Amino acid sequence: MRTLYTFFRSSTSYRLRIALALKGLDWEPRFVSLPNMAHRTPDYMALNPQGLVPALVEDGKVFAQSLAVLEYLDETHPEPPLLPGDASGRAYVRGLAQVIGCDIHPLNNVRVLKYLKARWQLSDDDASEWYRHWIAEGFRSFEETLAASGLSGSCCLGDTVTIADICLVPQVANARRFLCDLAAFPLSVAIADRAAALPAFEAAHPSLQADAF
Amino acid sequence: MRTLYTFFRSSTSYRLRIALALKGLDWEPRFVSLPNMAHRTPDYMALNPQGLVPALVEDGKVFAQSLAVLEYLDETHPEPPLLPGDASGRAYVRGLAQVIGCDIHPLNNVRVLKYLKARWQLSDDDASEWYRHWIAEGFRSFEETLAASGLSGSCCLGDTVTIADICLVPQVANARRFLCDLAAFPLSVAIADRAAALPAFEAAHPSLQADAF
Repeated sequence: MRTLYTFFRSSTSYRLRIALALKGLDWEPRFVSLPNMAHRTPDYMALNPQGLVPALVEDGKVFAQSLAVLEYLDETHPEPPLLPGDASGRAYVRGLAQVIGCDIHPLNNVRVLKYLKARWQLSDDDASEWYRHWIAEGFRSFEETLAASGLSGSCCLGDTVTIADICLVPQVANARRFLCDLAAFPLSVAIADRAAALPAFEAAHPSLQADAF
Repeated sequence: MRTLYTFFRSSTSYRLRIALALKGLDWEPRFVSLPNMAHRTPDYMALNPQGLVPALVEDGKVFAQSLAVLEYLDETHPEPPLLPGDASGRAYVRGLAQVIGCDIHPLNNVRVLKYLKARWQLSDDDASEWYRHWIAEGFRSFEETLAASGLSGSCCLGDTVTIADICLVPQVANARRFLCDLAAFPLSVAIADRAAALPAFEAAHPSLQADAF
């Protein structure tokens, strides 16, 4: 059996829940409450010294970093593939996933918002402004990359779900939770909304997880 | 011929210069001055709508996002390999690379430091404190992951250079430029210093680039 250390609202956990569902893989959840700092307890740090969620445990091995775990799941369970078959297509899809995984999410992580508020006494409004700034810049980058390539269909690349869609859907959900205006990114939002309606994406939605509140 | 859009001090450009040198691939530089905002000119944005460096152009195709480009170079020029041969090893190495590429670098990017200073009138000292905070937390995570796995040798995984080392060396160089105390991370620093002395890493060093100042 495989175990996923997850928090319902963590968008990186959400990515892995989607991939596990797409691959039809069974998993058991272990809930790690970020508000309760459960990711920083000695027990969890012994499992994943990075002190972040998600972590996947399979065959006694612990895997951290969601983008790395997506590739691991794709390599060990190739059907359906989450990356295209050609090197340049893979570079394109990985690049899109990384616009979200490297240019948007790390800046808007809960730990970053907390630090800004604690260290410089920024208000909730300031933190929201920060959040929205990086959403706007990151989605501009994502949208223009999609538009310039002309490669999107119902999904980011053609009509097949890839890791780009798997990263996009949780980021759009998060942006909406922070009331970001996404009107300037119609291509990205339409792709995310179509993907979010697929059964595997629906099953992975934060609101359906047993730790949701 | 392939072209790399690069800035000498950009640690993500540095990653690609290392990989190109390790693979023995010829490339022509196009220098993109970040201080001069050359990455936001209409010409550059037409090439890479993300408005960031690096970008690799090969066979008329443009590839953005350095971690995706590292994988592309490894897939299209497999020798020497930059990832191990087994799925769990690849997940481990990609995870290490992503501790740097997702948990450290995005927070300490020039654009982020600029935003903090411009929006909230933070001083240079404040920006340095922010930089050092994420270096300390990110390197703690990296160091403890290395130590817990027991898999490092002269390199992050055994004695073979991987994308983990390629990401680590520029991040250590950057941390030193910001005068960060790295004494608590002896394993990571020793690996970085050994790798940095290899010819391919030396050739890629910021100070040796034609746009260095």
